[in-house]
Amino acid sequence: MSEFPDHLNETRGRYPYLTSLASRWNDLDLFGHVNNAIYYEYFDSAINRYLMEVGGNDPLTDGTMQFCVENRCRYYREMGFPERITVGLRVAKLGKTSVGYDLALFAEGRNEPSALGHFVHVFVDRANRRPVAIPAALRDALARLLGDT
Amino acid sequence: MSEFPDHLNETRGRYPYLTSLASRWNDLDLFGHVNNAIYYEYFDSAINRYLMEVGGNDPLTDGTMQFCVENRCRYYREMGFPERITVGLRVAKLGKTSVGYDLALFAEGRNEPSALGHFVHVFVDRANRRPVAIPAALRDALARLLGDT
Amino acid sequence: MSEFPDHLNETRGRYPYLTSLASRWNDLDLFGHVNNAIYYEYFDSAINRYLMEVGGNDPLTDGTMQFCVENRCRYYREMGFPERITVGLRVAKLGKTSVGYDLALFAEGRNEPSALGHFVHVFVDRANRRPVAIPAALRDALARLLGDT
Amino acid sequence: MSEFPDHLNETRGRYPYLTSLASRWNDLDLFGHVNNAIYYEYFDSAINRYLMEVGGNDPLTDGTMQFCVENRCRYYREMGFPERITVGLRVAKLGKTSVGYDLALFAEGRNEPSALGHFVHVFVDRANRRPVAIPAALRDALARLLGDT
Repeated sequence: MSEFPDHLNETRGRYPYLTSLASRWNDLDLFGHVNNAIYYEYFDSAINRYLMEVGGNDPLTDGTMQFCVENRCRYYREMGFPERITVGLRVAKLGKTSVGYDLALFAEGRNEPSALGHFVHVFVDRANRRPVAIPAALRDALARLLGDT
Repeated sequence: MSEFPDHLNETRGRYPYLTSLASRWNDLDLFGHVNNAIYYEYFDSAINRYLMEVGGNDPLTDGTMQFCVENRCRYYREMGFPERITVGLRVAKLGKTSVGYDLALFAEGRNEPSALGHFVHVFVDRANRRPVAIPAALRDALARLLGDT
Repeated sequence: MSEFPDHLNETRGRYPYLTSLASRWNDLDLFGHVNNAIYYEYFDSAINRYLMEVGGNDPLTDGTMQFCVENRCRYYREMGFPERITVGLRVAKLGKTSVGYDLALFAEGRNEPSALGHFVHVFVDRANRRPVAIPAALRDALARLLGDT
Repeated sequence: MSEFPDHLNETRGRYPYLTSLASRWNDLDLFGHVNNAIYYEYFDSAINRYLMEVGGNDPLTDGTMQFCVENRCRYYREMGFPERITVGLRVAKLGKTSVGYDLALFAEGRNEPSALGHFVHVFVDRANRRPVAIPAALRDALARLLGDT
């Protein structure tokens, strides 16, 4: 489908934020590879790590919460256990109340991604859960991840 | 985006296979709602339940395996715990080696879905993991879920 | 070990609260059975469901939170997918600030449990996370699950 | 209970195998800390990583499988996200067909563990799922983790 870029071009250098994680034994399903739902855990963890560590987000107390309103993933290559995986993150689109992220998963020693993902977060008010403007500090952090595409 | 149908039309009647499940305590993330990755567990479980219970698939011994090559979800409404959720499944496209599924999640007492999903499975040979034709019995079972869209 | 009762005696009738759930596709690990960590999800979900549905606990707003300080499980029989599982719950010990639960998992059509579990919850103050007396309404609900052992 | 050692003595040096992992966003439950079931994922991953990377176990093809027949965990300190966690592993008891593991989780910069765990694996024949002797190569690898307790 047209909504994913050509994955062969999506090397690590195209993702301004890279973070690594280890797969877990029970990430595997009975086919012996990481189950598709787990890929979203990897993506989600990279995004929230960035929001918290770089953007200063405190998800327990901040006045806003980030809700995922849409995401998707395309799978190119199986992943296993034990395996160390690098997640790449960039911001594809930064709106007033929402942000679109492009993500990629890289196996060790490989340039092309094992999977590509996309997430859309809408920021909502903690009390009434209605969309609100992305707080300035988070917005600044997100702007630094804007890619050239 | 255009790749999801209008969710207000996507009522239970449009899904020929319906199965229910219970949310779990740790499906919730710290925002107190079911985490996005968990929605894919719900979808995946509905699809594989159908393949096994209706199609006769034995994922441990069959000569083929079904690999997810792409999926996506759009989120309309938060889900909580404890909550009983109905998953609706239909087949959107049935190819020689691949099948596209449309999915929806319904909260109790509501007609419109809390989320819409889409999965694409490619059937591969267990030994060499290359695409193969969908086995006839599974194909027949899948054909019975072909929707009118 | 001595800390588990003889499982052959632990039939459904010995658990005053019974609730059912469905296993999920990715509960399975690559050995094709439900992974051990998932058993704790089943137990945890049964306990919190009881606290919320019967005891009136609202984990998002109550002044107390229940923290697991110890748990254990003994496994007697593999579980698969798709499978509907009944969780049995009774209260083994009800203290001022803590409660011990005995749990069992039952496969459909079987009298003896597939696994036995034990959880200890300590109730803590939401603000300072120090142990506090179990709130009266929850205590009453828990007392109704006290077994005869 | 008596079945756990005094955790204040259980520093990293008492665990001959140490491996690190990153917590994930949805490891957190709505209380904002890592859910108890996830601790077992951490333990399970450390054990299986050791069996595979050091012992040469191939869980997809070896003639034996390791089944967890009992495990337990005691929780001393909450863990959060994002957090890098070290898992310590030693062998407490090495039998003919089974092995008992002691485990500990360490937060960065702390000497005392956040949790202590214990697992018992029984090795079974892949075909008939009956207990069999631990294969020699795995047994040698496990013997190297025998602690002095």
